[in-house]
Amino acid sequence: MRFTSDRRLDDGVRERDFTLDGVPGVLWTSGSAPAPLILLGHPGGLGAMYPRLVGRARGALAAGFAAATLELPGCGDRPRSAAADEARADLRRAVAAGEPVDDAVDRLVLPLVEEAVPEWRALLDALLPLPEVRGPAGYAGGVIAIGLRLALVEPRIAAAVLFAGSFVPRAMVEEARRVTVPLHVLLQWDDEGNDRQRSLDLFDAFGSAEKTLHANTGGHTGVPAFAGEAANAFLARHLL
Amino acid sequence: MRFTSDRRLDDGVRERDFTLDGVPGVLWTSGSAPAPLILLGHPGGLGAMYPRLVGRARGALAAGFAAATLELPGCGDRPRSAAADEARADLRRAVAAGEPVDDAVDRLVLPLVEEAVPEWRALLDALLPLPEVRGPAGYAGGVIAIGLRLALVEPRIAAAVLFAGSFVPRAMVEEARRVTVPLHVLLQWDDEGNDRQRSLDLFDAFGSAEKTLHANTGGHTGVPAFAGEAANAFLARHLL
Repeated sequence: MRFTSDRRLDDGVRERDFTLDGVPGVLWTSGSAPAPLILLGHPGGLGAMYPRLVGRARGALAAGFAAATLELPGCGDRPRSAAADEARADLRRAVAAGEPVDDAVDRLVLPLVEEAVPEWRALLDALLPLPEVRGPAGYAGGVIAIGLRLALVEPRIAAAVLFAGSFVPRAMVEEARRVTVPLHVLLQWDDEGNDRQRSLDLFDAFGSAEKTLHANTGGHTGVPAFAGEAANAFLARHLL
Repeated sequence: MRFTSDRRLDDGVRERDFTLDGVPGVLWTSGSAPAPLILLGHPGGLGAMYPRLVGRARGALAAGFAAATLELPGCGDRPRSAAADEARADLRRAVAAGEPVDDAVDRLVLPLVEEAVPEWRALLDALLPLPEVRGPAGYAGGVIAIGLRLALVEPRIAAAVLFAGSFVPRAMVEEARRVTVPLHVLLQWDDEGNDRQRSLDLFDAFGSAEKTLHANTGGHTGVPAFAGEAANAFLARHLL
């Protein structure tokens, strides 16, 4: 890992850009005491996502955490995948036509999960040794399939906040039954792009003894500020 | 209203029993500064419910509120209703047999709502003038049909925490669409006695621009402590 920038935001948050095996990412810390790390998940495209990510990072830091994120495969400045672009186009077509989406979801999301999850695990390898960072770590955000897989396979992830989405490969619903870490699922009740019933079915499938669903009125990007605070309170209960 | 007892609990909470037009109830306060009042709903039977109610009252007081409750019609020491007893027996039979419950629910719950809601409004009339109590008031608990009707007809109720239950008369689902105060609905995901889908449908029906569903693993009485704290944080956001 190589840091490429190091700056203080106006509220004293330290923000460092880095590349990890050529993949860009951002680390946010405050102070020098080691803080548990929250991995901030997102749908890809760090440039466009930056304003929302830095807001979520500030919330995590205020709750006592460090926060980091990583560009997703095929997104932002990373090399695109022709297969993923085709699957994404097929998915958009299927959604617009009201047709079954499962095939396109499998072709789009399964390779993304297979490629991204090892990268996020390598991110833990790179960041946890820093003096400002410690475990246990948490995951917070979408892509829900990435968070689901990380929660299942990565023992350093001790709790996860998952943003509900219905684009979860069918095979991964079975994986959800084997997840055991505490989960906090955020569902936007009026999300125009996701199938509410599929999100509820996935929540039902998770095997965790402690799982909480917070559903709020509003569309996909309308997560209210108090819901973000409640998610950080959940992470604090389990990681601090 | 006539106070019939006045004592300090070991944590300094002041607990007063009272009767209001012959109906028993309890008021919990701390300190003498006026605090917004939370009406604590329950399924009836103050004696058996007392341990859980005093725990919820302590949580409300810790969050900055006063709290009060009232016995329900036909419950505890109040005169029983032969029609309600018959409807309750029919409902139990229908649930046990897996048969439709709507007719029994209507016969049990509609008269209960019609009788209880004016009593809880009279409770506001009696308590809000006290120096330790002020509006706006909130409602928190079951019976969800009582909370729903109160939220609809009582302008002094400015926010409500509703414990999800599926025994809501069909006609009242239409009332739910006209509710506009902020709502926070608690749903026990594994509630053995309630139909989850009906609870989700009712949540969907509420007309409130701000409504939040908090679903947690566990059975009917297994609401986790952190869910109670989140409900009080919701009330504090709207009433304090």
